[in-house]
Amino acid sequence: MLKQGAHSTPHRKVDRVSLDRAAAYEILDEALICHVGFIADGSPVVIPTIHWRIGDRLYFHGSHGSRMGQTMAAGHAICVTATLLDGLVLARSAFHHSMNFRSVVLFGKAWEIDDPSDKAIAFDALMAKMTPDRCTAIRPANARELATTKLVALTIDEGSVKVRRGPPIDSAEDIAWPVWAGVVPLALTPGTPVADKA
Amino acid sequence: MLKQGAHSTPHRKVDRVSLDRAAAYEILDEALICHVGFIADGSPVVIPTIHWRIGDRLYFHGSHGSRMGQTMAAGHAICVTATLLDGLVLARSAFHHSMNFRSVVLFGKAWEIDDPSDKAIAFDALMAKMTPDRCTAIRPANARELATTKLVALTIDEGSVKVRRGPPIDSAEDIAWPVWAGVVPLALTPGTPVADKA
Repeated sequence: MLKQGAHSTPHRKVDRVSLDRAAAYEILDEALICHVGFIADGSPVVIPTIHWRIGDRLYFHGSHGSRMGQTMAAGHAICVTATLLDGLVLARSAFHHSMNFRSVVLFGKAWEIDDPSDKAIAFDALMAKMTPDRCTAIRPANARELATTKLVALTIDEGSVKVRRGPPIDSAEDIAWPVWAGVVPLALTPGTPVADKA
Repeated sequence: MLKQGAHSTPHRKVDRVSLDRAAAYEILDEALICHVGFIADGSPVVIPTIHWRIGDRLYFHGSHGSRMGQTMAAGHAICVTATLLDGLVLARSAFHHSMNFRSVVLFGKAWEIDDPSDKAIAFDALMAKMTPDRCTAIRPANARELATTKLVALTIDEGSVKVRRGPPIDSAEDIAWPVWAGVVPLALTPGTPVADKA
């Protein structure tokens, strides 16, 4: 289970919210990117980035010059949110339109991993996530590349999962309204690969 | 053009970053959800939500009980980030793997819109975005529903656009490495609609 903290306590629609760690892992593994929130000069900043997971650790990478990487490496509080959009929920009434989605919100403080062999293992896991069929065939990172890339990790600890599934929930008096109602599923779908001409 | 502020000044990879307002609008209109960042009790919080746009205003909705809605309505600083994932960029070297994406990051302070007719116009625009083919056929929101739903707006002013397109950029010495390289396009794709049985 995830730890429930001040920020992960659900305020409403409690039935859609859980602390289920397995559900959190499933969403984090399926999502190719997440959005990382941090505070810079007193203001919230939200940046999209790729993440990947080994056990209860979530990993992120960046260049040494990036503000997000520096903020994460410095151990400031962050919030990491991964969202999968699963469908448009089209009700009979405007009011009951919704989205089907699965999301994870995590809170914590990241830290930088410097050890070259730990970094190599973590970046191998990133390639296994991004391109499982090619990950042993690509040219592996060399020492210079590993040194150039900042690696930060967050222990998956405090947070929550929110899921909406299923059909629209119209009021009884709207069920006879003469309009199609239902769900249009949405999925991030791969298209035809485009080979590099280089 | 968008306004460049302290938080939207690109720190690196400047060639991928712009202040192009038309590009920002295109991304905001295509993205069905965004991630809103705010500060709660000193910590960053990032929540996914639907957004929509009329002119230079971005709109968000929520219940009166939601923390995000309350924070936005109170005029605290927020960051709104919308990201479209366009492809996996599969290079010959692990190091040069990347993602094609388009993202907008906006900074500002939102405010609540209370006027019922302004709210009705804004929510009509949400339906036109979510379900253009059905938006005149659904049962419109009534006065009670409009009153129940909080509407907040953000003027699109300070922020930036970041885009990565195109093939992998491998080093010259890796071009002959014997592995497929290229781009796998990704798109959020609608599936077969599922009619509600109610």
